[in-house]
Amino acid sequence: MTLPIAQRMNRIGTETAFAVSLEASILARQGKKIYPFHLGDMNIPTPPLVMDAAIQAMKKGKTGYCPTAGIPELREALAKDVGRSHNLQLTGDNVSIQPGGKPAIGKFILTAMNPGDKVLYPNPGYPIYESLVDFHGGAGIPYGYKEAEDHFILDMEAIRKGIRAGAKILIYNNYQNPTGASSPKDEMQELARLAVQNDLFVLADEAYFDIRYSGEPMSIASLPGMAERTVILYTFSKKFAMTGWRLGAAIGPAQFIEHISKINVNDESCSNHFIQYGALAGLQGSSKEPQRILSILKERRDLLVDRLNAIPGIRCFKPEATFYLFPNVTGAMERKGVAGVEDFRKLVLQETGVSFCTRRHFGRPLPGETEQYIRFAYSGIDMDQIQEGMDKLAGFLA
Amino acid sequence: MTLPIAQRMNRIGTETAFAVSLEASILARQGKKIYPFHLGDMNIPTPPLVMDAAIQAMKKGKTGYCPTAGIPELREALAKDVGRSHNLQLTGDNVSIQPGGKPAIGKFILTAMNPGDKVLYPNPGYPIYESLVDFHGGAGIPYGYKEAEDHFILDMEAIRKGIRAGAKILIYNNYQNPTGASSPKDEMQELARLAVQNDLFVLADEAYFDIRYSGEPMSIASLPGMAERTVILYTFSKKFAMTGWRLGAAIGPAQFIEHISKINVNDESCSNHFIQYGALAGLQGSSKEPQRILSILKERRDLLVDRLNAIPGIRCFKPEATFYLFPNVTGAMERKGVAGVEDFRKLVLQETGVSFCTRRHFGRPLPGETEQYIRFAYSGIDMDQIQEGMDKLAGFLA
Repeated sequence: MTLPIAQRMNRIGTETAFAVSLEASILARQGKKIYPFHLGDMNIPTPPLVMDAAIQAMKKGKTGYCPTAGIPELREALAKDVGRSHNLQLTGDNVSIQPGGKPAIGKFILTAMNPGDKVLYPNPGYPIYESLVDFHGGAGIPYGYKEAEDHFILDMEAIRKGIRAGAKILIYNNYQNPTGASSPKDEMQELARLAVQNDLFVLADEAYFDIRYSGEPMSIASLPGMAERTVILYTFSKKFAMTGWRLGAAIGPAQFIEHISKINVNDESCSNHFIQYGALAGLQGSSKEPQRILSILKERRDLLVDRLNAIPGIRCFKPEATFYLFPNVTGAMERKGVAGVEDFRKLVLQETGVSFCTRRHFGRPLPGETEQYIRFAYSGIDMDQIQEGMDKLAGFLA
Repeated sequence: MTLPIAQRMNRIGTETAFAVSLEASILARQGKKIYPFHLGDMNIPTPPLVMDAAIQAMKKGKTGYCPTAGIPELREALAKDVGRSHNLQLTGDNVSIQPGGKPAIGKFILTAMNPGDKVLYPNPGYPIYESLVDFHGGAGIPYGYKEAEDHFILDMEAIRKGIRAGAKILIYNNYQNPTGASSPKDEMQELARLAVQNDLFVLADEAYFDIRYSGEPMSIASLPGMAERTVILYTFSKKFAMTGWRLGAAIGPAQFIEHISKINVNDESCSNHFIQYGALAGLQGSSKEPQRILSILKERRDLLVDRLNAIPGIRCFKPEATFYLFPNVTGAMERKGVAGVEDFRKLVLQETGVSFCTRRHFGRPLPGETEQYIRFAYSGIDMDQIQEGMDKLAGFLA
């Protein structure tokens, strides 16, 4: 028979970065030494505190269903923790535990967006925003980032234009993947003012909120008038090196969160029961382990930024957050005589084993975009391999 | 601000059985002794073999992401296991691991159903089918069950009528929740013939396939012409007493499964990594543990069926599968002078502490339905409590 495939399946996207992993692993199997800067995964173990608490809970029989929005203890602990870091009044009712941070994206869109609704989303950005807006029948309006002196800034004009075109929903990923961008205070305030003035509803993807090396934490949800119109995507993945555990949350206005939990009932019933006790132990434990994880990442960042900036034709900002770098390689590509950034990626991978993603894995280039960027992740590669990989890259691009 | 709540949120349903849990827990807190027959959860521990393998994997660092469709070893083991029990040729490409069996329902619907498409689903039945068909813009067509001499049978005429009305998708839950119904061979063959003749695409919800106390296993996917048009919902929840671990799979034509895995990328990224090694150990281990779980459940079933049938005005079939009973209580309600089955449930709960769901938790009554049913689950209650609860119920209904 001809399989019935619904029309919406023509509109679903994917993370094309997985194709890079595949290419790299094929080369590795052929004996090529690979320097994995393409992975957003972490090669840092989950803290023993978290593992032990999850194991204890498993052994104590926390192996049956739990409430669809998560165990009350974890909802309350997270409300307290995020309430403190965000200066918000939160209770467990503001929290819906999810099997990862990512599921909050789809559930936010399903809850807030009608077919045809216009949604502003970052490009370059995490490709799942665009994919799920399209999939569920919305109309995505991308906005970009621009280079300032030593950091990326939002293309605020593109956001204003999107609002004039009728966008009522804004997806905002501060501490951004792939650029590493952090909004300066005035930028975030301006964005909040626009949101309040134009009655926007906001998904604040804060997956990297706790992966900050300097500066004060800032969330758009904390700004005047924003708490009532913001849903925070929270994840345990990065702070506690738990990417493969799949645990996160949607945090926002209680009535909206109740709708999200109604989708939980229909989708996964609940998140894994016993791992929630692991996350709870992590939240209640000292900040030593998260700080240890941060210090490992910071050391890698510092080395990688310095090494990249020492290569002719590469210009790389030093982000205060995330574990990504988004160097401008326009000059290096010109020197090598390569026009397409994907061709450049493949050439470098083939010649040096240094594997990274490009701007193309984070959306279609916007009109007028001329500079070329690649994305390095340093969450899955150790210091000695960073050194070795950068030696190879520097040699090739010299 | 007024929260933006999309229209589809008016069409999403829930598991109203959770409200029964809530009522029971409020009474319990007031000091009332509760006999929990309302829960579809299990009070049987997960086999140590499964726990140990998951813990080992966690400690070995299987805490990062895994492939979106699941670890290859588990996909292949499941393909082999289900291939054997179903007499099908399956490979890992036919398997997409899910965070529970339930997510396969929504992903099947999203992949196969366009808005407006007509979908046949059982009623009484698991309420999530109707909820998600409505939620994603489809038009559900319910079909019921009828009492034969000693078992429930499908209302085949309702199914034929639905096909004439244009249904192209059929949701079929053999080893059924809530009735416990198992299709006799001729019934399943007739259903398969209808599916092939009318080019139906089928979701076979086989959550209780392995919870069988007698008889030969039967899957509609094994019948002629059906493998190419059937997606199996598989779960580890019941066979290995892993309900709260949240692990299952969608199993079907490789091209369709690939689409489902594309939704995985957009939804949960992947299922929890290390618990997949636990499930793998379960599949590769001896059948002793699953048999031990079955023997516990069988003992409960036998007792409960006998006790229920000894009460005047209750008639209860003895299903060969699932851990549910669906007794006809029309007579008992008449004796008590209660007209509504929900009133009957509340009265019994208040007077005896015996807590169960009713037919109303599994869909709106169909036109012409006159008999009254309640649902007992015996997966979460021990033998002595079954005895004690039945003493109370028998006393009250004497």
